[in-house]
Amino acid sequence: MPSKVLISTANRLYDARTIDQVGLSVKMDVDSTAVMSHVRHLRDRFTSATLRDVDSWKPEHKISGQAKFINQNTVAVNGQHYQAKSFIIAVGSTPNIIKEWKDILNDRFLTTDQIFELPQLPKSLAVIGSGVIAIELAQAFHRLGVETTIFARSNKVGILSSPKLQDMAHEELLRELNIRFETLPEQVSLENDQIKITYHNKQSQLETIFTDYLLSATGRSSLLSTLTLEKINPAYGDVKTLPIDLQTKQLGEYPIFIVGDAFSKTPLQHEAAHEGRATVQNCLNYPQVQNIKTLAPLGIVFCSPEMAIVGQTFQQLNDAKADFVTGFASYEKQSRALTLGKNQG
Amino acid sequence: MPSKVLISTANRLYDARTIDQVGLSVKMDVDSTAVMSHVRHLRDRFTSATLRDVDSWKPEHKISGQAKFINQNTVAVNGQHYQAKSFIIAVGSTPNIIKEWKDILNDRFLTTDQIFELPQLPKSLAVIGSGVIAIELAQAFHRLGVETTIFARSNKVGILSSPKLQDMAHEELLRELNIRFETLPEQVSLENDQIKITYHNKQSQLETIFTDYLLSATGRSSLLSTLTLEKINPAYGDVKTLPIDLQTKQLGEYPIFIVGDAFSKTPLQHEAAHEGRATVQNCLNYPQVQNIKTLAPLGIVFCSPEMAIVGQTFQQLNDAKADFVTGFASYEKQSRALTLGKNQG
Repeated sequence: MPSKVLISTANRLYDARTIDQVGLSVKMDVDSTAVMSHVRHLRDRFTSATLRDVDSWKPEHKISGQAKFINQNTVAVNGQHYQAKSFIIAVGSTPNIIKEWKDILNDRFLTTDQIFELPQLPKSLAVIGSGVIAIELAQAFHRLGVETTIFARSNKVGILSSPKLQDMAHEELLRELNIRFETLPEQVSLENDQIKITYHNKQSQLETIFTDYLLSATGRSSLLSTLTLEKINPAYGDVKTLPIDLQTKQLGEYPIFIVGDAFSKTPLQHEAAHEGRATVQNCLNYPQVQNIKTLAPLGIVFCSPEMAIVGQTFQQLNDAKADFVTGFASYEKQSRALTLGKNQG
Repeated sequence: MPSKVLISTANRLYDARTIDQVGLSVKMDVDSTAVMSHVRHLRDRFTSATLRDVDSWKPEHKISGQAKFINQNTVAVNGQHYQAKSFIIAVGSTPNIIKEWKDILNDRFLTTDQIFELPQLPKSLAVIGSGVIAIELAQAFHRLGVETTIFARSNKVGILSSPKLQDMAHEELLRELNIRFETLPEQVSLENDQIKITYHNKQSQLETIFTDYLLSATGRSSLLSTLTLEKINPAYGDVKTLPIDLQTKQLGEYPIFIVGDAFSKTPLQHEAAHEGRATVQNCLNYPQVQNIKTLAPLGIVFCSPEMAIVGQTFQQLNDAKADFVTGFASYEKQSRALTLGKNQG
């Protein structure tokens, strides 16, 4: 959610700066010092509603502490054992970090959990990753005036698997953003209160840039590994191979359901809400477990122009050797898009 | 369409001016001299596609001139008589004007057809009317920095017939706009290169304002009256009482269909397109005439915040003594609206 506030603010500024598209000429003098506190202010306002809800629960219904499974019916927290007929696990996830760089760069190495705590906008930022979050944040910071460099392991940006759409996404985003595809930093160090990043460019030449912060946005890992699930079943030592039913979120044959970021291919808010509600029903009615009705698959990158997938992706259709046709419509000459000065992409 | 370009430009400027809602402080210096030419430029671009289409028709299929009906099968244009199995009438409409004021004010008296021809934004503008077009244009000019005064015959603004929604519309729009309800100009004159408007305020005191232009936005009249329809049927002398079938747009029992602004309760573009296509079918298949499938009733005022009606209005339901419930949802605390700084109304 804080990323959406940042994106919205960045786009508002971008709209103001590109206002000449609609016949106005504006000289602007922007003071963006309050942006980060605005982001935190709204984030805290949004989360406070949920926190208030949890706060209103009776204290005897809440236990705070690190939980570990003892067996399929028992969880230990703070040395106490708790038993339940069924469990919902919603431990969430944590951003992946490169431990070695974190040690070198300290608080200059940021994850998506930490970046919103910056007291003010940095002057420059390097972003690692070209997935949803990386592109959204990089573009937002760029539009807010932060000098931004993006390093991407692959040649792919965002979520589109259709080659034609990837080409368009490249073209549109590279017009604005400094993205180095198939290029990753090789060495990082602190030098004169800045981060020095060394990497080989595509021509295999060694290059160096200096930047204030390094944002690692290369995905998140589930916190399931903290729960000692191997006590339930020795085969559950590797949380990446857990036999979780995609339709019911049930773990194996156990009365255990895993939802949210802890195990999810459905990260959007309405999907998470639906999944949560349906799983509570399954838990209460256990062992009668119903499939969680699948909503239409939906993926969105809130960059500009936006990318979105509804239903199966190009790659899924291709992999399934499905017989499909592709259509193409452009907004470039569409009246409403032209009227709004938003006829790109 | 030109009004939508003006509205879009005005809202873009308003968004830039109110950018402090999202944590940015911007000093702006706006030059809006190019706005009107931008509006005309886009309008001409949009209409040129339609004009190109008409231009591509063979000359022998087009006759240019004032048409008058001789009888139900015959039309006279430039002294020539033309006969057809069936007719579609799409003569459009013309803005209502107050003849007496037009004579006094000359080119300072504007209709919605003329206002987009202004070489640049005026400094001040008086608008008569509080319907869709009046409110849309008045707000757009106001947001572009034009000092705007609105005179409204009634106490109603826009299209909402629900008293609660009217109250909200009043509250929101009066926060920004200078609307004088139940107040109309009584006298207008030219004085020192400005319009002097005299009127009684609600306390029955005589007041005077000076303004650069007067925009009359009190609706449009069909141009059907130019067609001498009374030659078809003597009862058709008053075009306001023509027996036009709402389902088929057919005039009485004649092979004549009236579409578009000439007779329409469906002024939106997609409705007009649908109506046009379906009527051509009816004409070609005459005398087999099918009902033009009715799209869901839809009304929108592109003011900020927008007003819209889908389906039957409060008044229609009330008049039909229908049993109905009203629901209420506010965007005031909605996360996305807050994120965008658009949580009013």
